[in-house]
Amino acid sequence: MRMYDLILKKRRGEELSKEEIDFFVQKYTKGEIPDYQASALLMAIFFQKMNKEETVNLTMSIVNSGDVIDLSDIKGVKVDKHSTGGVGDTTSLVITPMVAALGIPVAKMSGRGLGHTGGTIDKLESFDGFSVEMTREKFVDNVNTLKLAIAGQSGDLAPADKKLYALRDVTATVDNISLIASSIMSKKIASGADAIVLDVKVGDGAFMKTVEDARALAEEMVSIGKGVGRNTVAIISDMDQPLGKAIGNALEVKEAIETLKGNGPSDLLELCLTLGSNMVVLAGGAKDADEAREKLLGTIESGEALKALKAFVKAQGGDETMVDDQSKLPGAEFIVEVKAPKAGYISKINAQNIGIVAMELGAGRATKEDVIDLGVGIMMEKKRGAKLEEGDVIAYIHANDKTKAERAIKGILDNITISESFTEEIPLVYDIVK
Amino acid sequence: MRMYDLILKKRRGEELSKEEIDFFVQKYTKGEIPDYQASALLMAIFFQKMNKEETVNLTMSIVNSGDVIDLSDIKGVKVDKHSTGGVGDTTSLVITPMVAALGIPVAKMSGRGLGHTGGTIDKLESFDGFSVEMTREKFVDNVNTLKLAIAGQSGDLAPADKKLYALRDVTATVDNISLIASSIMSKKIASGADAIVLDVKVGDGAFMKTVEDARALAEEMVSIGKGVGRNTVAIISDMDQPLGKAIGNALEVKEAIETLKGNGPSDLLELCLTLGSNMVVLAGGAKDADEAREKLLGTIESGEALKALKAFVKAQGGDETMVDDQSKLPGAEFIVEVKAPKAGYISKINAQNIGIVAMELGAGRATKEDVIDLGVGIMMEKKRGAKLEEGDVIAYIHANDKTKAERAIKGILDNITISESFTEEIPLVYDIVK
Repeated sequence: MRMYDLILKKRRGEELSKEEIDFFVQKYTKGEIPDYQASALLMAIFFQKMNKEETVNLTMSIVNSGDVIDLSDIKGVKVDKHSTGGVGDTTSLVITPMVAALGIPVAKMSGRGLGHTGGTIDKLESFDGFSVEMTREKFVDNVNTLKLAIAGQSGDLAPADKKLYALRDVTATVDNISLIASSIMSKKIASGADAIVLDVKVGDGAFMKTVEDARALAEEMVSIGKGVGRNTVAIISDMDQPLGKAIGNALEVKEAIETLKGNGPSDLLELCLTLGSNMVVLAGGAKDADEAREKLLGTIESGEALKALKAFVKAQGGDETMVDDQSKLPGAEFIVEVKAPKAGYISKINAQNIGIVAMELGAGRATKEDVIDLGVGIMMEKKRGAKLEEGDVIAYIHANDKTKAERAIKGILDNITISESFTEEIPLVYDIVK
Repeated sequence: MRMYDLILKKRRGEELSKEEIDFFVQKYTKGEIPDYQASALLMAIFFQKMNKEETVNLTMSIVNSGDVIDLSDIKGVKVDKHSTGGVGDTTSLVITPMVAALGIPVAKMSGRGLGHTGGTIDKLESFDGFSVEMTREKFVDNVNTLKLAIAGQSGDLAPADKKLYALRDVTATVDNISLIASSIMSKKIASGADAIVLDVKVGDGAFMKTVEDARALAEEMVSIGKGVGRNTVAIISDMDQPLGKAIGNALEVKEAIETLKGNGPSDLLELCLTLGSNMVVLAGGAKDADEAREKLLGTIESGEALKALKAFVKAQGGDETMVDDQSKLPGAEFIVEVKAPKAGYISKINAQNIGIVAMELGAGRATKEDVIDLGVGIMMEKKRGAKLEEGDVIAYIHANDKTKAERAIKGILDNITISESFTEEIPLVYDIVK
């Protein structure tokens, strides 16, 4: 088998066999196929596409390029949840304790990553002493007893994906549905999930800008999941404005706590119930989504979800008293108001740029070396469709630097459109792909 | 300017500007753009194509990546001739003395190259003492006095082409018309030609397998030539069977001498007259192709063409008496007959494979290190359409090794189809693109 022939075959629009895809992925990962042949193949794939079978084979080949986490000693169906990424996405912090409170095991591998805010682990480090460092035995034991544990990524998961993504990133071959879908799904499968609920965001704050593109990606990922025996559901949800109010690390933790107490923003709660109910159904914890939703709401009303959060934080070394006394969580020196410069309706919020404002306040990392300021961020008090009088508070900026706070006020105002009327309602959830 | 953006632009089907193409070619040649980005761009070009302006800009950027030969101190219009490559192509050896005999300067840069036989220089080395090594002054002086000199490639001509071709060769991005045309034309332009006559071969022994592809390539090259002020004409000619009878180095030299004496194979003579007459017209040596053809035939009848060959061979150190006494030219130890196994008509000759048979006899190089055996090769006595009786001699094999000769007999018979009838006439010249 020669890499040249694989490139030519795909260039001609022919289907690559499982053996051919394995040959490419394994040899490329080992450095036995040069980057210049890999990038030529990726560009040919961009133009000629891959069919469902090829995409499934690519995904499993990426999975097999590295370690695969074995969660078989955890009882029950392990359901993972993954978001394609948005601004102010606090869902994981809310959903995981709710689902765990129903006795469904949540064994989550999380990352830190780059972005507008930190990843789930960064956010959880708002609790003094919280750590994701633990032995495998402890991790399994925590899941079996508390139904919830979150670990950092261990082992060498999907190394082919890291190498391929780095190459795609510099050769303009990122945005192909099969390549995106196999990249996401390979990591979830390697993490040991039995079933997967995906939150595919769409809008200007998301990677997918149109509902059509988001749906194509959702369908591709569900097809991969089913193709490899991992039941998968994808929710297509709005990211044309930040989700909830909080954009920041400790701010999102506080928002999650409030949501678990029943005082959260309605859009965040609604999306959490949609994602969570699908997780519960996949895990066999309810006969349908309606029943699952009732059960999840029950965990808020009964206080079980909040209790699950506290037990989980404590088990991983965190100060669980901070859940009840949020004043102990990291805060900011200045809280400044962003006021409406005129009356009208908020007709548009540029989610992407609002996220960048949060990052520039110190809430996120632009490079791996950046240190996150857990206390800073933005609280979006008014969302799309809100009626404003001149001088109404649109948002609060939490900052530890006055100059940065001033810049953030301008940044937010520059990215909010106030119009005389507002008619266009955008749904929170566009569709559920099963 | 970033290479990433150029890849994305071309991937989207947009036109690259002259500055962008220069950025890519010059930086890639210097090693400042990595192979993996170059191959991604080449694959994007394969799918999205380049328009005429981009192709002209690419060609000139490749020309400017290295030395450009200045032939301005040679009087007259310097016309170069280039063939896209075929089997048994003896035309250069015949045309150059004919054109020189009309007083038109032929200042040719030739190569050795890989293939079924050697290049023009290898063939000419059949004359004892012949050499292409000479000073620039001597080269110019020879062309001004004798109207004919052939030099080896000197200087660093079109280094971008060497680097790009090597990359295309391993990434399945060779067969794009713009890339092929710019590769060929950049080398001709860098060699200092004022005008160019191209022989675009079509058929199973050529790179272009269909007349449509050959025409597209011919039109692209003529368009480039005109776009950069080099008058260019392309002849589309048949390579579905070897040209003439001889395939080999000294064998082709003998065939060229016979043709210059008026005793050559009719197809070889006809193609030489077609190519040569277009060279003469471009150089201003005749008012039209018919007049040029008459003049060229005149150089054979008068013996002037043969005289020009002798003068040229002598001027470059070769033993010109070998022109009159061909027995002094390199020969082979064994000459064996290939006989028709049955009666019928030759309906097909696989030119490509017959060329490989010649190479395996020792007439060509598979790798740069191979040493050519000048005396060996094949004389194809019967061509497509010939009526055969069983036992008729189809070809003679000239070999210096009995085992190789035996293998060659089988090789030739395996690649000739003898049928009960023959109807399909294939033209020698399909078209002339101006």
